Parts: sequence; C-alpha cells; structure tokens
Amino acid sequence: QLKHELNEMPAIDVGDYIAELPPEKRAIAFRLLNKTEATDVFEYLPQEIQEELIGLLHNAQVCQIVESMRPDDRAELFDELPAGIAKRLVQQLSPEERQATATILGYAEGTAGRVMTTEYVRLRQGLTVGEALAKIRLADQDKETIYYAYVTDNNRKLKQVVSLRQLLFSIPDVLIEDIASDRVIKAKTEMPQEEVAQLMKRYDLIAVPVVDREDRLVGIITVDDVVDILEQEATEDIQKLAGVSGGDESSLSHPLEKLRNRLPWLVGVMALYIGASSAIAPFQKTISLVPVLAVIMPLFSNTGGTVGIQALTVTIRSLGVGEVTPADTMKILRRELLAGLGTALALGTTMVLLSLIWTSPETRWVGYVAGLVMAANSVIAVTLGTLLPMGLKRLKLDPALISGPLVTTMLDTIGFILFLTLITISLNILHLPT
Amino acid sequence: QLKHELNEMPAIDVGDYIAELPPEKRAIAFRLLNKTEATDVFEYLPQEIQEELIGLLHNAQVCQIVESMRPDDRAELFDELPAGIAKRLVQQLSPEERQATATILGYAEGTAGRVMTTEYVRLRQGLTVGEALAKIRLADQDKETIYYAYVTDNNRKLKQVVSLRQLLFSIPDVLIEDIASDRVIKAKTEMPQEEVAQLMKRYDLIAVPVVDREDRLVGIITVDDVVDILEQEATEDIQKLAGVSGGDESSLSHPLEKLRNRLPWLVGVMALYIGASSAIAPFQKTISLVPVLAVIMPLFSNTGGTVGIQALTVTIRSLGVGEVTPADTMKILRRELLAGLGTALALGTTMVLLSLIWTSPETRWVGYVAGLVMAANSVIAVTLGTLLPMGLKRLKLDPALISGPLVTTMLDTIGFILFLTLITISLNILHLPT
Ligand SMILES: [Mg+2]
Ligand SMILES: [Mg+2]
Ligand SMILES: [Mg+2]
Ligand SMILES: [Mg+2]
Ligand SMILES: [Mg+2]
Ligand SMILES: [Mg+2]
Ligand SMILES: [Mg+2]
Ligand SMILES: [Mg+2]
Ligand SMILES: [Mg+2]
Ligand SMILES: [Mg+2]
Ligand SMILES: [Mg+2]
Ligand SMILES: [Mg+2]
Ligand SMILES: [Mg+2]
Repeated sequence: QLKHELNEMPAIDVGDYIAELPPEKRAIAFRLLNKTEATDVFEYLPQEIQEELIGLLHNAQVCQIVESMRPDDRAELFDELPAGIAKRLVQQLSPEERQATATILGYAEGTAGRVMTTEYVRLRQGLTVGEALAKIRLADQDKETIYYAYVTDNNRKLKQVVSLRQLLFSIPDVLIEDIASDRVIKAKTEMPQEEVAQLMKRYDLIAVPVVDREDRLVGIITVDDVVDILEQEATEDIQKLAGVSGGDESSLSHPLEKLRNRLPWLVGVMALYIGASSAIAPFQKTISLVPVLAVIMPLFSNTGGTVGIQALTVTIRSLGVGEVTPADTMKILRRELLAGLGTALALGTTMVLLSLIWTSPETRWVGYVAGLVMAANSVIAVTLGTLLPMGLKRLKLDPALISGPLVTTMLDTIGFILFLTLITISLNILHLPT
Repeated sequence: QLKHELNEMPAIDVGDYIAELPPEKRAIAFRLLNKTEATDVFEYLPQEIQEELIGLLHNAQVCQIVESMRPDDRAELFDELPAGIAKRLVQQLSPEERQATATILGYAEGTAGRVMTTEYVRLRQGLTVGEALAKIRLADQDKETIYYAYVTDNNRKLKQVVSLRQLLFSIPDVLIEDIASDRVIKAKTEMPQEEVAQLMKRYDLIAVPVVDREDRLVGIITVDDVVDILEQEATEDIQKLAGVSGGDESSLSHPLEKLRNRLPWLVGVMALYIGASSAIAPFQKTISLVPVLAVIMPLFSNTGGTVGIQALTVTIRSLGVGEVTPADTMKILRRELLAGLGTALALGTTMVLLSLIWTSPETRWVGYVAGLVMAANSVIAVTLGTLLPMGLKRLKLDPALISGPLVTTMLDTIGFILFLTLITISLNILHLPT
C-alpha cells in the first residue's frame, strides 16, 4: 500500500517524506522505491541524508543509483560528499558516466561548465527532419530535454539549434539545416552562472547550450536549474546587503552557522564604528553644554542610514537583474541626486520641525543646524549608495560586498563630524546660547 | 540590409534597438519588420514606446499586431494602456481573442488567472497516442507550448497531463489515458502568482495548468513568465526590506518615482523616531553629567539595528522562497535565540572593550552597563526579527511590510530607554562617579 503510494508520488514529495521520517526508518522507506523512482528521490534528498543512506544501503544499490543520476546532480553530490566516499563511488561508475562527471567537476564552481549536464540531443549536419525525429525517438530516455536539439559539424562545433516544435511542424524530407536557427544563444563554459541565468531569462529559453573555447558543444543548462540559480543569487544579494555573509542562510540553519554568518560583520561594523564614535568623543564638552544634541543625533543617524540603504539596495538589485551596468553610472547618479535633493529638502524641513519638540527657544538654532546636516547627509547618502556598488562592479568584485551596515557606519561618521563641527563653530564663533 | 538584419535578430534585441533610437526613427524602424516579427518585438517594447507606436502606426497594422499578440501579453498591455485606447483596441479584436483577453483581465492582479495564457493544447479523453500527435501537429502554431498537453473530459474538467516526450516515446495505438499522469500539479485561478512560481520551481515544470473553481481547465502559465515573477517578487522583498515602497523601482526610474517610493517611509520613520528621541529627552541631565553616553549610544544603536536586520532578512527570505511557514516559528525562534545568545556574548564583550577607548577610569562602569544593554538588545533584536514577519504572515499580510527601518527604530527606542534608565539608576542609587 505505502509502496504503491510512494512510487506514484512526485519524487520531491517522497524526498520530503523520507527526510522527515526518524533516521532508522529512512532506509526502510527508501528500499520500497523502484529503481527509477529511487534515483529521482535520491537527487532531492538533503545532503546529510544522502550520505546517511550511502552508508546504510547495499553497495550494489548505491552504485546503481549513482550510475543513473543525472550528470549535473551527480557532480553536485560528489562535490559535497566527503572525499573518501566520493572517490570510492567514482571508481565504481561506468567509464562513460565517470567521464561526464569528471568533465563537469573540471570547471570552476559557479560557472556554466559546473552547472551544465552532458545529456542532450546532438544532431549531425546533413540530416533530414524525418531522420532527426527518428534519432530523437531512438535516443536514450535519459536526455535532460528533447525539446531542443543542437546541430554540430564533424568537429562537434555548435552550428545550429532546432526545437522539437520546429521539427514536428516541418515536412520530413526537409534538411534540418534549412529550418534550424543559425543564431544560437549559447554560454561559454567559464561564464558565471548568474550571467547564464540572465541570458535564459532574456531570451525565454528552456535550455541553453554550453560550448568550450573552441566552440565545441560540451553540455546544456536547463531552465529548472536556472530557476534555482536565480533564486540563490537573489538570496545571496538580499542577505549580503543585510550583512549576512555566506548569503545562503536559511531560517532553519544551525545556530552555529548563523553565528558564523553574522558575527564577523557585526564585530567588523563595531570596529569600523570606532571612527564614528571617535568623531563624537572630542565634542563631549559641547554635548554637556547642549545635551539636546544627544537627543537629535540618533534621529538623523537613523534617517540618513535609511536614505543610504534605499539607494544602495536599488542600485545592487538593478545590477543584479542586469537592468544596468557601470556604464550607466552617470545617468543613474543624476536621477538619484535629483531625488536626493527632494529628499534633502523634505527631511531637512522635517528635522527642523521635529527639533521644536526637544529644543527650548534659546536652542532653536540647533534645530536649524540639524536640518542642514540632515539635508547634506541625504545627498551624500544617495551618492555613496550609487557610487560604491558601481565602483565594485567596475572592479569586477561583487557589488553586494558593500553591505548596508557599512554604508550606515560611513554616513554616521560623516554626519556626526559635520553636525558637531557646525555646532561647535556656532557656539565658539557666533556665541549662540546653550 | 537593415531590414534583413532586424528580421533575423531575436525579438528582444530588436526591441532594445528600437527603444534606443530617437523617437522619430522608431516607427520607421518598426515598419521594416515582417508581421510575425513585428508582434514579437512589440511585446518586448517598454510601455511608453508601445503607446507611442500605437499612435504613429496605421490603425490596420496596430490591430493586426494586437490581434496576434499572446493573450497574456495582450492583457498586460491593455492593463497598462490609457483606458480610452485600450477600449478602442478591444473593440477591434476578433470575438475569440476578445474573449481570451476578457477572461484574463477578469481575474485579480497578481493571481494565476491574470498571468496565464489561453493558448494551450487540450486533448479529449479517449484519443490514442497517434491521434494526439496528429492533433498537436495540426494545432495552431501559436500555442504557447506544445510540450505538455492537458487531457480533459467532456465538461472541460482537467483529468490528466501528458508530455510530448511521453507521446513521442510511446506506440501510436496506445490510449493516452494509459500513459498520461493522473497526478496533475495545477494552480487555481485565484492562487497568488508567487505561489504558482513556488509550485513550478518545486516540481521543475515548464508549464502549469490553471483551473477554475469547478476544476475546469482555463489556461496555462509558462516557465518564462514564472522566471519573471520570481525575479519581481525577489525585487519586491529586497526593496521593501530597505524601506522602498512599491518594490519595483529600477536604478533608471524617474527621480519623482524614486521620491514617491522612498519619501513616505523616510518621513514615517522620522515620525516614529520621535519615540526613540523622546526616550532620550528626559535624560538630558544625565547626559550632560556623563557626556560619554553620547559617544557610546550611536555605537550600540547601529550594531543592535544590524543584528535585527540580519534576523529579519533571513526570516523574510526564507518565507519568500517557501522554505518555512509560520508553523515553524518556534523551531526558528529557538535557533535564532541560541545564535542570539552567542551574539549577545560577543557583542557585549566587544562593547565593554571598545568603551575603554572613550571612558576614563572613573567612568569605566558606563562601559559595563553599555555591554549589558548591547547583549540585551541583541537578544531582543533576533526575537523581533523573527516574530514580526511571522506574525504578519500568520495574519496573511505581506511579511516584507516589516521593513528594516521600522525594526531599527523599535530597537533604538528600547535600547535607549534601557541604557539611560540603568545609567540614571546607577548614578542616583549607587552614587557612581561621573
Ligand atoms: Mg545517464
Ligand atoms: Mg524572459
Ligand atoms: Mg539539472
Ligand atoms: Mg535540478
Ligand atoms: Mg554569486
Ligand atoms: Mg551575485
Ligand atoms: Mg492568438
Ligand atoms: Mg506576461
Ligand atoms: Mg526546481
Ligand atoms: Mg507568456
Ligand atoms: Mg513573457
Ligand atoms: Mg507580491
Ligand atoms: Mg512577496
């Protein structure tokens, strides 16, 4: 009963079901699966459970699963397994599958070569539509997709692409080269995975071919994996912006992993903040004369930081989705500065008005200075929020390295120095009341 | 020459090319396109330019383009066009296409019904594989995808799904019901688009069928549109977290749009911050006695805010990708609190050490109090960062409504009150030196 049920369910649901079983029952449930289903389910299990099952199942069954896994998923598994286990499993693969795995693992992490699969439909030039369709029907059932076929010459160089749809709607006698497209959207093996994802998103593709430096077809990347890549990259950007290094934390991650991701930035930001606090320190006399400063300073620090993070976030996201490049910096800066001037005016005024709550008639002037600094801080904030990530991107570094906490710390340092200097000048030179 | 070139290029590239031409040349370039290419290119143009072209081209050409657009893209266009123009164009559609558009626009924005298309392959029960393949070959070329076909009964109720791959690999005489799958992953018309996207991501689908309340097939959603939805939703979350309302701003957005997106939050946060500043105000006497407080307070405000935003960001992202639900709240809170205790210990200690820089031997005790408050603030920060978005989600509100600036403001208010109260108690009751 359970056996039938499990073999009928989608593999990912069975994977979730097994992952939630108590450890001792997992291998038992897993053995109920038939061969094809077992491989599919195995691919969806979390890595710790994959490892656990490798230890519990018969070696023959493990070999059979690993042999029939998709090359891209198998490469990912071997990458995560302890080196000893991975090595043993590699040795038991058939030469063909071992070669496929070695090819993929030969490319750097995060590149097209590393996320591609080697199971695609390749057609040689010179075939007719009828021959091509016959070849596709006879091909291994385990091609990742048969909805695109790639036409290569005798040296495996990628020449054309043809969709199954085009083949089905054509007359069998026509040569494929007459219906296939010459403008092939393709990725090079060393292309970063996020650029591959941008490419597939832009051209609405279901799969993209991957070629080596000699333009030879070596693999394809399918849209289901690109969806995961886009999600990973968005998570990475969103978390790095918030100062969570790693960029792949989940709510359910282990507390130690959370600490490892978050503490470095926190301590780093505190250390950096020595600058901002040290900027305040020399003005302690001013503050004890005008203690309302301590009421107002946090207000413009919090607001100025928010202005900076807004600009920073929009810039990083636009870079992330490929909407803009560093070449657009000046165009963007102009718009950010125009918006920043409006912001400066609005927030400067609000600052002056809010100061009325805490200043006495004699210290009203403090509110005007605060408004002025709030306005200046807003303009500086949008400038930093635009230029810093653009600068990193131009240096080919990850713009998300400029996290929010870094920007708020810089803005506080600048703002405090500006504010306290202006206040001290007003006190000493203009002899304003305290 | 240019004409040939343009008709060979991918439609989205032609769209970009035309969008970058000076306005007076756009219609000229667009007229060079042949009929099919013109429709495809039109779909990729920014909405302002679509509107501009509708005004410049002959009515017959506009009608022809709009008639042959994909129903989902046409619905989106009509939704964005000024009501007058949209109405005129709708009246000129064929009854069939007008019906398709009306159906889609009849569903609420952001639901499955609104993003689906009505051009899919439907097979009636009882066909053989050979008949099904023949029907697919004879179908309109304009089906969005032919890679899945949906099997319905006489009442259009969705019964099964079969892939073109399964059909091609089967014997022509077999009945489709024997090879098609009964477990159809489907979306209801009112399902939020982000849930549809999660579904397609989870099951690695190229298209998902959409059914109405009576389980009748009314449309499909294809993966290329889901990729865009996932990107939009990630952008929305990332921007809302940073206090950019709207959540669809680009670096290149108009300065006024930037202002409209950002100013409400900024002014709102400043208004809320009256709470934090007013918490400081009664302690001005304490501050003029111990001005080093003004040096230390911004440090723990900035750090505490970062702790809160880290936890908030991880929670919102995990909810966003469907990794966790509010049912996991306690499990998550336990992990966050464990990590939070570690953070509290590390940051409390760092705080005490850094205070040494600015305190004199007589005011060392201020540093210990600051360390204690920093530690307490860290624990409060991870708690708020977890519970606030979970609470909203449980109320079926968008968790990204809890933006970073809101959390930092709350944390500042709590932290300042705690710190200044403890300091004042120490001064008044324990008679510690200043
Ligand atoms: Mg294989
Ligand atoms: Mg697209
Ligand atoms: Mg794959
Ligand atoms: Mg995959
Ligand atoms: Mg990356
Ligand atoms: Mg990235
Ligand atoms: Mg049509
Ligand atoms: Mg659409
Ligand atoms: Mg998936
Ligand atoms: Mg579409
Ligand atoms: Mg689309
Ligand atoms: Mg949404
Ligand atoms: Mg959302």
